[in-house]
Amino acid sequence: MSGSTIGVLFKVTTWGESHGRAIGAVVEGCPPGIELSEGEIQKDLERRRPGRMTSASARREGDLVEILSGTFEGKTMGTPISLIIYNRDADSGAYESLKDIFRPGQGDFTYFKKYGIRDYRGGGRASGRETAARVAAGAVARKVLLREGIEVMAYTKALGGIAVSPSFSTAGIIFLKDMDENGLVCPDPDACKKMESRLEEARRNGDSLGGIVEIIVRGCPPGLGEPVFDKIDADLAGALMSIGTVKGVEIGAGFAVAGMTGSQANDPMTLEGFLSNNAGGILAGITNGDEIVIRVACKPISSIEKVQQTIDVHGKPVELSVKGRHDVSVIPRIIPVCEAMVSIVLTDHLLRQKAITG
Amino acid sequence: MSGSTIGVLFKVTTWGESHGRAIGAVVEGCPPGIELSEGEIQKDLERRRPGRMTSASARREGDLVEILSGTFEGKTMGTPISLIIYNRDADSGAYESLKDIFRPGQGDFTYFKKYGIRDYRGGGRASGRETAARVAAGAVARKVLLREGIEVMAYTKALGGIAVSPSFSTAGIIFLKDMDENGLVCPDPDACKKMESRLEEARRNGDSLGGIVEIIVRGCPPGLGEPVFDKIDADLAGALMSIGTVKGVEIGAGFAVAGMTGSQANDPMTLEGFLSNNAGGILAGITNGDEIVIRVACKPISSIEKVQQTIDVHGKPVELSVKGRHDVSVIPRIIPVCEAMVSIVLTDHLLRQKAITG
Amino acid sequence: MSGSTIGVLFKVTTWGESHGRAIGAVVEGCPPGIELSEGEIQKDLERRRPGRMTSASARREGDLVEILSGTFEGKTMGTPISLIIYNRDADSGAYESLKDIFRPGQGDFTYFKKYGIRDYRGGGRASGRETAARVAAGAVARKVLLREGIEVMAYTKALGGIAVSPSFSTAGIIFLKDMDENGLVCPDPDACKKMESRLEEARRNGDSLGGIVEIIVRGCPPGLGEPVFDKIDADLAGALMSIGTVKGVEIGAGFAVAGMTGSQANDPMTLEGFLSNNAGGILAGITNGDEIVIRVACKPISSIEKVQQTIDVHGKPVELSVKGRHDVSVIPRIIPVCEAMVSIVLTDHLLRQKAITG
Amino acid sequence: MSGSTIGVLFKVTTWGESHGRAIGAVVEGCPPGIELSEGEIQKDLERRRPGRMTSASARREGDLVEILSGTFEGKTMGTPISLIIYNRDADSGAYESLKDIFRPGQGDFTYFKKYGIRDYRGGGRASGRETAARVAAGAVARKVLLREGIEVMAYTKALGGIAVSPSFSTAGIIFLKDMDENGLVCPDPDACKKMESRLEEARRNGDSLGGIVEIIVRGCPPGLGEPVFDKIDADLAGALMSIGTVKGVEIGAGFAVAGMTGSQANDPMTLEGFLSNNAGGILAGITNGDEIVIRVACKPISSIEKVQQTIDVHGKPVELSVKGRHDVSVIPRIIPVCEAMVSIVLTDHLLRQKAITG
Repeated sequence: MSGSTIGVLFKVTTWGESHGRAIGAVVEGCPPGIELSEGEIQKDLERRRPGRMTSASARREGDLVEILSGTFEGKTMGTPISLIIYNRDADSGAYESLKDIFRPGQGDFTYFKKYGIRDYRGGGRASGRETAARVAAGAVARKVLLREGIEVMAYTKALGGIAVSPSFSTAGIIFLKDMDENGLVCPDPDACKKMESRLEEARRNGDSLGGIVEIIVRGCPPGLGEPVFDKIDADLAGALMSIGTVKGVEIGAGFAVAGMTGSQANDPMTLEGFLSNNAGGILAGITNGDEIVIRVACKPISSIEKVQQTIDVHGKPVELSVKGRHDVSVIPRIIPVCEAMVSIVLTDHLLRQKAITG
Repeated sequence: MSGSTIGVLFKVTTWGESHGRAIGAVVEGCPPGIELSEGEIQKDLERRRPGRMTSASARREGDLVEILSGTFEGKTMGTPISLIIYNRDADSGAYESLKDIFRPGQGDFTYFKKYGIRDYRGGGRASGRETAARVAAGAVARKVLLREGIEVMAYTKALGGIAVSPSFSTAGIIFLKDMDENGLVCPDPDACKKMESRLEEARRNGDSLGGIVEIIVRGCPPGLGEPVFDKIDADLAGALMSIGTVKGVEIGAGFAVAGMTGSQANDPMTLEGFLSNNAGGILAGITNGDEIVIRVACKPISSIEKVQQTIDVHGKPVELSVKGRHDVSVIPRIIPVCEAMVSIVLTDHLLRQKAITG
Repeated sequence: MSGSTIGVLFKVTTWGESHGRAIGAVVEGCPPGIELSEGEIQKDLERRRPGRMTSASARREGDLVEILSGTFEGKTMGTPISLIIYNRDADSGAYESLKDIFRPGQGDFTYFKKYGIRDYRGGGRASGRETAARVAAGAVARKVLLREGIEVMAYTKALGGIAVSPSFSTAGIIFLKDMDENGLVCPDPDACKKMESRLEEARRNGDSLGGIVEIIVRGCPPGLGEPVFDKIDADLAGALMSIGTVKGVEIGAGFAVAGMTGSQANDPMTLEGFLSNNAGGILAGITNGDEIVIRVACKPISSIEKVQQTIDVHGKPVELSVKGRHDVSVIPRIIPVCEAMVSIVLTDHLLRQKAITG
Repeated sequence: MSGSTIGVLFKVTTWGESHGRAIGAVVEGCPPGIELSEGEIQKDLERRRPGRMTSASARREGDLVEILSGTFEGKTMGTPISLIIYNRDADSGAYESLKDIFRPGQGDFTYFKKYGIRDYRGGGRASGRETAARVAAGAVARKVLLREGIEVMAYTKALGGIAVSPSFSTAGIIFLKDMDENGLVCPDPDACKKMESRLEEARRNGDSLGGIVEIIVRGCPPGLGEPVFDKIDADLAGALMSIGTVKGVEIGAGFAVAGMTGSQANDPMTLEGFLSNNAGGILAGITNGDEIVIRVACKPISSIEKVQQTIDVHGKPVELSVKGRHDVSVIPRIIPVCEAMVSIVLTDHLLRQKAITG
């Protein structure tokens, strides 16, 4: 039990069910004296908003975050920051017919097996909605990181089998701000166009699409990360894999290292820095000052209109077609969630390192 | 700081440097009444022994584990189990010439940046040797799991670019015990032969090879894993990524989900169970009763004889050729380490679930 | 940082400042299937309400708790329970004149030294108001304990130097429900009368009074508590000392053991149980099945009208007389807070023990 | 389970049974670059040695500590420091007759109820011997504190009902080094003499004595301690109460505050500092820069020769007289243990505060 908290010094606890009264996060350990407003947090939440892509399907009303504690006269005080987002526009009635059914690819079956009781409305605690609380907490972390010149950004690396051209994937040439104008947060306009038509096709088929998000961290100093279990890559992998949609995480060259030789994989060092970045900015679990590069594989959204085979709580076979307001892909909405998780982990390790150098 | 402990109820703390007096682990939270002998732990340690493959390079003397506490008359007592392995046959002199050099791909540079001081002999705390303590602790976890009928096993999925044929990779047909006779712990004899010649080639070139290990868990009941940050896949990913050599982790279909549609990725449910296992045995972060399937990407060993470009602690460029006793690949030695990390995480979650159902 | 969470499996995080928007608690790890209503929590909150004693001084409006998550159709689900109490009737203007002054006996000076910033209104995070969140969380714990037949209750042992007669203090004869009718939660009517006149006198003098609360736990099974640092008495002492007003904690015979011999202090065992209870129900940090008996010393409320000598933030001496709505003693309001902390600790250990026996 | 670890950043895990192969501690999170030798740790261990007082009863051979990891060329590296003390001179045979008996005042009964299995020899894990590992770990903490000018010292405040004269108890005039020459670590020569004859008398009676230890911390900066559960007094109380012998903890004026008025209890502030120290150096759970003053009540040693009534594991009444090598009082041996626990907690909070100010 008690799995809703992450972090050692910078600790985030999220709470809330998709169709309960509200969701929220408590952020403990934020350093004092940092300017923080609801507007800044809201900005990240907007990037995660349902229906951000041209789609008729999502909840219409934006999530409005409130800061309930931890700030005074616009600045953090070092005390817990409580963030709340009330659930509005929640149409629970739509889930009445699903209450006894284990939807494939969802937590319905496992929550039932674990707890013997669950809020079936919209996935309850297992809903993607919970990630809004992560994004809100991540926005606080982002402020701490920015004070030290550390930037966390993510973009769409692949969607529905369409990958960004390798020439665009070089971290060094990405201009995230421009990409944000672009609905898919994708730096390659050609790929982007193909992704959009693939999305359209999947929507017509009542199906959904998976994809890959790459997260890049710039300006991170060397020295963050703890041997041996709390390596920074271990904590990042754990934090990203805790996003329901993520089925794989890789750092730097990632799975490609499996086919490399040591002389290919090792990044040569010079006085000007590393000549390559297969390490993804992390050596022996500690940041080396280079860009941190992480990729996550996102599975297609499980709720699809296409008919699926499953069973219900009484052990009867069921043919299921999930109707209602569903995105075709978690991308691009998952992007700020990935950034949030990376920001939370980095902030925690930044503070932990201060305990050594402070 | 303080990153050498993993787990909430079943907690493992490792300690020790490669060329210090000893390495070890303290296992807290092991349930009482479990039979445990040094011989059982030793068995897993043998599988991780350097020079297990036909190679002249490794430390000759096996690691001998001692149980210093936590058992009485051959049974665990519920109190911390202290395991120690003294460092024998450590040839520290060989590292004297490396003491000021940052070896590429190693923790030399980052430890220096983090702590300002480090034991340069054999990688110190960042040495792969630390994983022996994990294997010893994992052997204790394995005993707890076996009592509940849960088996954890891993095998070589790919090495040096040679992959096991997909027909062999079906978890259902693997007989681990047979594979153990096989030096590479690889179920595909043809692939195995090619891997061996690839290893030989790399050795001749003074180079090293990466690979992929697949870990499979059988007999795991549904219900293990905690929403939302301590999902079982999150904890597994973090634990496996904490192995120095690992650069990627994927669950079930893993990165392949990125190219799937929802109707392909979702595992249909029937009264007889799931019709496929893209989920890798985990739904919404909780085990679903199916086999847990995880793959990790292992980078090539960083210490190679081939000349590499780097710098030293004084900021001077250096050409480095690492001589000495080095394996060509972490595979197969890393296999019991992967099993250990998975066993430790599962045991922790097994106990956490008992707090709910108990 | 990050000190607002307590517990390992049953975890409580509180947040909120006295004059911020709200205060609250997140309760993680509550077992599923327990009936829980706002009314039940409210009942404990009423017992902690300011102005519960005949006094004109307190906030008039009661604290209203809302359950924002973690329950479904009136039952807990195993997911985090978020509890919120909005701050109403907060008269912040009254604190304007105190904003630069370090009030003696309060956290004004130490928060300023620690964080460099603080919400001076009503003590901010250091306010006794924070304990309302503890009481709310404790009410959840109480439900878990009651399911196992464990009852936690506390009463006034001493107030303003007036002690309950030893004949009344025997745990076995206390009828808490009767006492609750009594404003001071004191089983000795004679002592009670004297306490009341002592309170009246202190109020007239613009002064305040300290006292002693005894907490008793009935029905606790043997076996709760973990060697060696998480002994149940260690966790209870830490939890109770975390109440701002508490300056001392003792278990069983407590400080009196210092003057005893071993033959006096040891509780003889018989087949019918222990012949005495100097141990206070705890042996070697583990419950022995007997009543748990704990006493805490509460200091007088620091905010008094009587003139006190202090300094301000600019380093100037100040004569301070604190006016406004202040109780004369934390007793009896602190009683449900003590019960809450004990309930939270016991619930955590109850779940931890289930992981062993489950 | 898992209760053998204390601390958040500076973490100590102890392990070992009284008559197992060894006992030890792993110290995680010690900052790098601190000189540390076995000799320094040994010095504190000597102060805890059995038979330090004129008594024929104790194990003759001193405990020899070895540093197995975490230091390099005499300095800490930031990695876990593993400390081991082998058990020598352990006469297990003496315990054979006790193996089925629940000794009054000991953990025999509760360990049996908790785990169903226990090492009966010398109390096993519940033995006071475990505190040697705490003292060793505390010696590391002491080094961290001394670097910042923080000194932790303790002395005998009362023994067998004889209290140090109040004129000697003023923290300001104590010279601990002188006291160390004195077997009882007691600053009052008259009281000391009476304590010694009281000890002699108890020994003759086959009985034992309790007492009070006062711990004083000098040079502690303001700002250490975390609201609201990890208050420094909460953590200190928990840490001290985790010593098996301790039944009460009080800070500053402690239980005496219960009889005070607010105008008596509050410490007036001036530009030169606080005019009194009823707070014991802690306000709202955070150090205020004044001396930290804590007292603990120690119960008489439970193992006495005097005949006691108890039962055995088969449910039969037994008359028990414990013979063998037992001290008459835990004082003065418990003094370095108290210092160790306070040092460990302060070091943890010192590092946590660096994360804010660093």
